[in-house]
Amino acid sequence: MHREGRTRTGRRRPSGGAAEPRSARSVNYRQLRNPFPQMAVFSADRIAAIHDAALSVLEGLGIRVLLPEARAVFRAAGARVDDETGMVHLGREIVEAALASAPTSITCRAGTRSRDVVLEPGSLVFQPGAGAPHATDLARGRRPGTGRDFRELVQITQAFDVLHMVPPLVEPQDIATSLRHYFTMEAQLTLSDKLPFIYSRGTPQVMDCFEMVRDFRGLSDEAFQSESHCYTIINTNSPRQLDIPMSQGLIDFARYGQVSIVTPFTLMGAMAPITVAGALTLSHAEALAAIALTQLVRPGAPVCYGTFTSNVDMRSGAPAFGTPEHFKASLAAGQLARHIGLPWRCASGSAANINDTQAAHETQFALWGCLLAGATVIIHAAGWLEGGLTVSYEKLITDLEVLQMVAELCAVTPAGEGELALDALAEVPPGGHFFGAAHTMARYQTEFYEPLVADWSNFGTWAERGSRDSNSRATAIWKEIVATDARPQADADRVGRLHDFIARRSADGGAPPES
Amino acid sequence: MHREGRTRTGRRRPSGGAAEPRSARSVNYRQLRNPFPQMAVFSADRIAAIHDAALSVLEGLGIRVLLPEARAVFRAAGARVDDETGMVHLGREIVEAALASAPTSITCRAGTRSRDVVLEPGSLVFQPGAGAPHATDLARGRRPGTGRDFRELVQITQAFDVLHMVPPLVEPQDIATSLRHYFTMEAQLTLSDKLPFIYSRGTPQVMDCFEMVRDFRGLSDEAFQSESHCYTIINTNSPRQLDIPMSQGLIDFARYGQVSIVTPFTLMGAMAPITVAGALTLSHAEALAAIALTQLVRPGAPVCYGTFTSNVDMRSGAPAFGTPEHFKASLAAGQLARHIGLPWRCASGSAANINDTQAAHETQFALWGCLLAGATVIIHAAGWLEGGLTVSYEKLITDLEVLQMVAELCAVTPAGEGELALDALAEVPPGGHFFGAAHTMARYQTEFYEPLVADWSNFGTWAERGSRDSNSRATAIWKEIVATDARPQADADRVGRLHDFIARRSADGGAPPES
Repeated sequence: MHREGRTRTGRRRPSGGAAEPRSARSVNYRQLRNPFPQMAVFSADRIAAIHDAALSVLEGLGIRVLLPEARAVFRAAGARVDDETGMVHLGREIVEAALASAPTSITCRAGTRSRDVVLEPGSLVFQPGAGAPHATDLARGRRPGTGRDFRELVQITQAFDVLHMVPPLVEPQDIATSLRHYFTMEAQLTLSDKLPFIYSRGTPQVMDCFEMVRDFRGLSDEAFQSESHCYTIINTNSPRQLDIPMSQGLIDFARYGQVSIVTPFTLMGAMAPITVAGALTLSHAEALAAIALTQLVRPGAPVCYGTFTSNVDMRSGAPAFGTPEHFKASLAAGQLARHIGLPWRCASGSAANINDTQAAHETQFALWGCLLAGATVIIHAAGWLEGGLTVSYEKLITDLEVLQMVAELCAVTPAGEGELALDALAEVPPGGHFFGAAHTMARYQTEFYEPLVADWSNFGTWAERGSRDSNSRATAIWKEIVATDARPQADADRVGRLHDFIARRSADGGAPPES
Repeated sequence: MHREGRTRTGRRRPSGGAAEPRSARSVNYRQLRNPFPQMAVFSADRIAAIHDAALSVLEGLGIRVLLPEARAVFRAAGARVDDETGMVHLGREIVEAALASAPTSITCRAGTRSRDVVLEPGSLVFQPGAGAPHATDLARGRRPGTGRDFRELVQITQAFDVLHMVPPLVEPQDIATSLRHYFTMEAQLTLSDKLPFIYSRGTPQVMDCFEMVRDFRGLSDEAFQSESHCYTIINTNSPRQLDIPMSQGLIDFARYGQVSIVTPFTLMGAMAPITVAGALTLSHAEALAAIALTQLVRPGAPVCYGTFTSNVDMRSGAPAFGTPEHFKASLAAGQLARHIGLPWRCASGSAANINDTQAAHETQFALWGCLLAGATVIIHAAGWLEGGLTVSYEKLITDLEVLQMVAELCAVTPAGEGELALDALAEVPPGGHFFGAAHTMARYQTEFYEPLVADWSNFGTWAERGSRDSNSRATAIWKEIVATDARPQADADRVGRLHDFIARRSADGGAPPES
């Protein structure tokens, strides 16, 4: 029942009907190109003005960089640096040189060639919701995230072709922080062959993780460093601050040729100006500073531009997602990304507390903002609740339906003479139907997308089958995936060596996160 | 609490907090222009091929027209007509002349000038879900639609500026069919000042309705006929058939200068070919025939092109909505509408049986198909369940949130020097926050959309307040609207005369529908 062997994965019937024939439809969800027209929220000259303002912010106001090594890199490049305050004033020529050397296309090597991810303008990559301290599902309720949750969520991520990278799904809080990176890396490498994520929580952990990926993939040091095999996400500390582990991450990933996705997380009205244009000016400035650091360390290092800008409720300060302001910020970020010509990451999300219609609407609304913004990578595209405090198993499944439907729109729809169906139109009389037409019979097993969790049966049939809502059907789907425990092929020796490495390093005390 | 007097309507807090200040934001939702880029699913030459194939279908295969008067109109124009079979073979020159005379812009007069609706390429008009035999809500459950339901749904439609026309919301099955049109017209005219809908169920009912609208609006016959004050929806009987009441409707509305929205309702694989291109060839042919009839009756008569094409589940025959195929069909229809240069109607929808995440996702997904297709009018944009068999009060509210957010995207987002916020960026130190910045203080009451039903409070607060999901919050919202019973200003004499007319006509037995 695992969908791994099928190109078109995730197709399941919501209930009953084990005898129902399966669709023969096959659509490649693994390598997607964004088919949607790009939408602008600002005129080209105002985008240029925002870019220019961001450069002025970096030059005039500066950015505080907490890591001395990073400040030294900036100083060596000609930036004005104050080690007392940590402030770095970055001239625009440094940023412009960095934008010139940053690659526009990054091929990321996964565990299987068909899982490779190309990050470049025009490609479309989905990630599930990530970084949550809590997990929730209808069977077990809401709880602090555990190692078990992390592993299960990797399994679910692996099961759907439309999810292209493994993000830091949930924080396994029952694992000691100095050992947690072993646990999450072991799960990602053995339960999935998709591109793994590494937290930038200091050089010691990052080096451990690089070593695990390198050896599990059977690579030499040189081979590892010559292509990207893993990635990290760099959130600046808005406004205008880059902390120690993030600075280390930018340096380490650049030095080793691995991917940094630079994503200032800015909430309009809180850690960013209240206007879309102001928040993007700040976010863009921070992203440019981080990108510059990677290129100063290693020109050509793989780095992905990003933004995650939404707004807060101005009465309570509560973050909101999937709002019109979030949508507009995504559009503006897309324009800025095109202005600098880099692949870029955007984010969906929801502030709802359970997977209800608010949650569905917010996540899908934000998703469309990302899609029309021309995002390369869209994170939090499925399963993210409470503004990221919780990942919901059921929401992961119900949002996946939308991602699969978007993936269907990425495929070409033929409109040749056969599809125009003049033969069928001649065959069926006025007021008749096309169920038995030859044109229909030749296509009925392959023509339509078959839903993952949607139930299209009529009210009577649906009621007879127990009146199950989409969430309860979603529970059955993820439970089956977890129970099946399908894993990608892995070399037993490599798995053994990975476990040996982890045991040895754990016995030595592991590597505590830096701060 | 009625939102009528406010330009920015529908803003409500989901729970508690009566003392919370209301947003001072004001955005006009009444006249919208579609801000989204248009998306193509087929190349321009294949769209031309579909248009040409549709013309060939009308010429070669023909369309069955059941009304003798309509056949006589076609015959007089030079069509080849067989009264025995009812088949009409329509030459392309007749269709081309009709497309040349059909107006590209139609101004529809509502009860208040600010409610007028302009149907033209580029304008964006929303209608709630319509035509349902059943109604459902969490307080009273699912039941056959009643007059009470119809009136309540008119009240809810009236309460939100983002809904621009009143459609046939629910079928009031407890009202005799020969009197039902009096009931629905009275409700639309007295509870709303938005553009009213008239069912084409035969000339006698339509003439009754025209008279009611004319007199209630205080118009002469000539004034009534010189502008559009009401509209009907014409569904062909696919494939290739136009029944008696629909033909009468096309003729009557054209003759009186009122709007026909021509919408073949075609399900791929059932009453239409299984391919998007084939279904659109059929739908387009039927729409062209109906448009031609209106223009032959009165050149320049207001008519709106339309399609509603989705697919069925090929195992059960059950209709599906909000699918990738539905989305693609909307895109193709938009391309055909632009090819012929007319305003056009598209449809959202959902096949879900309750307002769960499936329902939310399907409706929003289909909505985006319509928006990217450049639709002028989008029906079933809120509240439509079970493929149209039920209108849900709660779904009406929860979907309205999305429509309001889309309306927010129609407004210009400024990016002047003030919005770039360089002053605020200089004022707030690294790692600080913008809550108290002067830039924020000047804008916090007006900058952000305030949600209708979304609850952004954190999990603890939300749980304390009763863990209410979006649907239960929606119940409170519609109940309040119904209880408030706000009505537009109306001349008491006109209301009295309307009631007299209805009483007199009812005493005479009313007007049974024709078939």
